[in-house]
Amino acid sequence: MSTEVNDVLAKAVADHPDRFAGFAVLPTLDAAAAADELERTVKELGLKGALINGHTRGRFLDDQAFWPIFERAEALEVPIYLHPTPPPPQVREAYYSGLPGMVGNVLALAGWGWHCETGLHALRLVLGGVFDRFPRLQVVIGHMGENIPFSLARADQVLTPFASLQRGIADYFQENFYVTTSGYFTFPPLLCAMMVLGVDRIIFSVDYPFSDNVEGRAFLDAAPIAPADREKIAHGNVEKLLRM
Amino acid sequence: MSTEVNDVLAKAVADHPDRFAGFAVLPTLDAAAAADELERTVKELGLKGALINGHTRGRFLDDQAFWPIFERAEALEVPIYLHPTPPPPQVREAYYSGLPGMVGNVLALAGWGWHCETGLHALRLVLGGVFDRFPRLQVVIGHMGENIPFSLARADQVLTPFASLQRGIADYFQENFYVTTSGYFTFPPLLCAMMVLGVDRIIFSVDYPFSDNVEGRAFLDAAPIAPADREKIAHGNVEKLLRM
Repeated sequence: MSTEVNDVLAKAVADHPDRFAGFAVLPTLDAAAAADELERTVKELGLKGALINGHTRGRFLDDQAFWPIFERAEALEVPIYLHPTPPPPQVREAYYSGLPGMVGNVLALAGWGWHCETGLHALRLVLGGVFDRFPRLQVVIGHMGENIPFSLARADQVLTPFASLQRGIADYFQENFYVTTSGYFTFPPLLCAMMVLGVDRIIFSVDYPFSDNVEGRAFLDAAPIAPADREKIAHGNVEKLLRM
Repeated sequence: MSTEVNDVLAKAVADHPDRFAGFAVLPTLDAAAAADELERTVKELGLKGALINGHTRGRFLDDQAFWPIFERAEALEVPIYLHPTPPPPQVREAYYSGLPGMVGNVLALAGWGWHCETGLHALRLVLGGVFDRFPRLQVVIGHMGENIPFSLARADQVLTPFASLQRGIADYFQENFYVTTSGYFTFPPLLCAMMVLGVDRIIFSVDYPFSDNVEGRAFLDAAPIAPADREKIAHGNVEKLLRM
């Protein structure tokens, strides 16, 4: 199924090469097959990396069973986009039940849960040693960094002494991660991300259908930042990352 | 046990009234008793409100069984400080297991989990209608707002249409919450909180033993903010909130 989807995606890109580029979908349940599909889609189809939707049946990607995917991504010099997915059932029950109507469901996803869980997932990758093993691997996370920029100094201070890693926690986020704006279209979190990660690590994106694309464009246009930084966020950083 | 602890606390405050003020501990398993103990400690002992450590055996405070506590706090015009606690066991297993050594445990607490769970808890209070029922209630959350300032615009945009509330989600945080600095001693999250909630809503605190008190003091001294705003954060806001 991944192969079929990626072929369709590659066709859409080929039909509109001035409009689109693509990230592959990977069959993460079989990490060796996922690594091979990543290589096929990059080398044969010209895709630019892969997008993985969070945990795989409750297992996060710091589990070494998944590391063949990271090994191949590093070798191919393509990033992995770590996207949210619905939380594991036991988290949904513990954290998001008991609220009226649809509210608990939205809270578990775009309202809060997605962002905390994906920030957690990113921290788990660091703490599990993924970037010590694959130091050139680049991971992209959305939603202005999934709360990481806000809490990175705290995590760095509290976690670094307990982690047997080659670098401090914050270093990994400043050297192995990019963040996209996706749906976070106000200046305070952008400024926070710029101050913590640096403008070279921020990539514009929308978050359709969770946000309005026109609003996203207007946000970037109006952000009180230097023209050179606006260009980096709008296209320069991603062109460099994806070698476009 | 709460009564004993509160009496000891009140004695310490009485021994050093120029140094200390206190928040009561409440027996949240029995909300009526908790409300009565809040009233006793405020009226008879001069305590300034109560501090509640997150969920009670997995139940969050939006559960109406706990609302007698909020009703009494509003009537007494004292705040509730919503402090973190270890996550429910099923969340600990789903989110924080499988990491080397002590890292998963620290990640579940001060490294990440505390802050996302307490931010979630604050959102649940809003979404559960606590502030529609008790519109003058004030809740204090620590750690520069437990990621809420970073993600509030997103939560407001995504959740408000699904919530049957009297105000937008963001309004409640700007009118019914205070945040303390506790352990978040860098400028990017402070600036984010100031921009989103306003300086009148920020209260200085340390986070002993998770942070260094001297470092906290140095952070506030060095923060590039106006002298009047520094005074508000250092003491003015909390004096107003606690009527000291």
